[in-house]
Amino acid sequence: MATVPSVTVYGPPMSTAVSRVLACLLEKDVDFHLLPVDMSKRQHKSPDFLKIQPFGQVPAFQDSDLTLFESRAICRYVCDKYSERGNKRLLGLGLLERASIEQWLEAESQSFNPPSSTLVFQLAFAPRMKLKQDPKAIDQAEAKLSDVLDVYERRLGESRFLAGEEFTLADLSHLPNTQYVVDASEKVRGLFFGRENVRRWWEEISSRPSWVKVVEMQRSPPPPTTPPPKSA
Amino acid sequence: MATVPSVTVYGPPMSTAVSRVLACLLEKDVDFHLLPVDMSKRQHKSPDFLKIQPFGQVPAFQDSDLTLFESRAICRYVCDKYSERGNKRLLGLGLLERASIEQWLEAESQSFNPPSSTLVFQLAFAPRMKLKQDPKAIDQAEAKLSDVLDVYERRLGESRFLAGEEFTLADLSHLPNTQYVVDASEKVRGLFFGRENVRRWWEEISSRPSWVKVVEMQRSPPPPTTPPPKSA
Ligand SMILES: N[C@@H](CCC(=O)N[C@@H](CS)C(=O)NCC(=O)O)C(=O)O
Ligand SMILES: N[C@@H](CCC(=O)N[C@@H](CS)C(=O)NCC(=O)O)C(=O)O
Repeated sequence: MATVPSVTVYGPPMSTAVSRVLACLLEKDVDFHLLPVDMSKRQHKSPDFLKIQPFGQVPAFQDSDLTLFESRAICRYVCDKYSERGNKRLLGLGLLERASIEQWLEAESQSFNPPSSTLVFQLAFAPRMKLKQDPKAIDQAEAKLSDVLDVYERRLGESRFLAGEEFTLADLSHLPNTQYVVDASEKVRGLFFGRENVRRWWEEISSRPSWVKVVEMQRSPPPPTTPPPKSA
Repeated sequence: MATVPSVTVYGPPMSTAVSRVLACLLEKDVDFHLLPVDMSKRQHKSPDFLKIQPFGQVPAFQDSDLTLFESRAICRYVCDKYSERGNKRLLGLGLLERASIEQWLEAESQSFNPPSSTLVFQLAFAPRMKLKQDPKAIDQAEAKLSDVLDVYERRLGESRFLAGEEFTLADLSHLPNTQYVVDASEKVRGLFFGRENVRRWWEEISSRPSWVKVVEMQRSPPPPTTPPPKSA
């Protein structure tokens, strides 16, 4: 008998932060409802949405009575709550593994995300939205990203994944931005593919079934908006 | 008998990221060595330092055989490892408390930190380093910070601290940047003090003995550099 999933994700899969949460749920084999939020109609700024995401951003997340925002906090919760499901190594087994994963997850959030988010916007979204690109912002972000990837290249010469020999949340968290920028720009693709270890790592993490499925969701047309099921 | 602490923090207390870790260690009542890193001599870019902090930033952290970087990852590790010491609520008791703390710690890292770091640099460090301030960067950061503080004002009208009724890592993580900017600028001080709940919250979290001690450490002259004690 099919059970009604207790988890709902609010937001479009094409959002990088939403897709981070989707990849995590798929790795953890946790069923979920995906509820589209029409950002072109500014639904993410509506009073109802602001009740669960006070910054007016996607994703928002619900698991029974609990609501949460911030993609990386949601991923940590999913790993802690569903520790016995799906990929059990995503947030490590024990204190030391978790510490290393948290370290590289913070490197993603603090060092990798700022320049790569700028490039996602400038190189992938601005053209679709017919907005003018800012060449100076692009140059600066490429230079910063290149420095970060130098650190990753050395690290990935020592271990298969960022936090060690296992694929973890630290690697997963890089998927959304990287997918957009390697698809959008030959030059940025070169920053990843011109570094031997970074290239090997990217090819391995981006071919995981969880991520392949998220990319499919990003490329298929959004389903019609339906109201959330009444919680039992 | 005095025991040799197993924990070493590398970096000057006047660094915001270093002081985040110091506040956490003091809350947790964990003894530590503080090893100065002379940034004016670019010691944070030396090959030895890069071995433990590959981005060439402070802090770096050591606990017996484990080395870590990234201040927020270090704080999480300290709370997990020393769960039975000092303030036991810093990262919550159980899954739901931790989820809320992680949510607001991410809000700090993703929404509060970018504009407030810009202001720390522009308003507090640039004048000391005799660098020219960038008025446009200051204006933009003040506007962004003001939006973030609007969200905090509403949140702190519902609960005493960001993640609920207890002081946690989510609050603590705001101390370093906020201290610099409220001390450096009447206008930014007004952003915090002009909001009733934010003001109450700031007055409460900044008067905790742990933080008062960190501010003292920031204001006292740095000790002479000594080599770390041999680990037993
Ligand atoms: N730090 C947040 C970032 C969320 C975020 O920036 N979402 C974007 C889409 S990827 C958004 O909602 N932008 C609309 C806005 O900021 O108004 C998270 O990781 O959840
Ligand atoms: N995300 C890092 C930031 C560390 C950081 O930016 N440290 C500054 C001092 S507060 C630094 O070392 N700056 C020198 C540099 O980046 O070269 C953390 O939280 O540990």
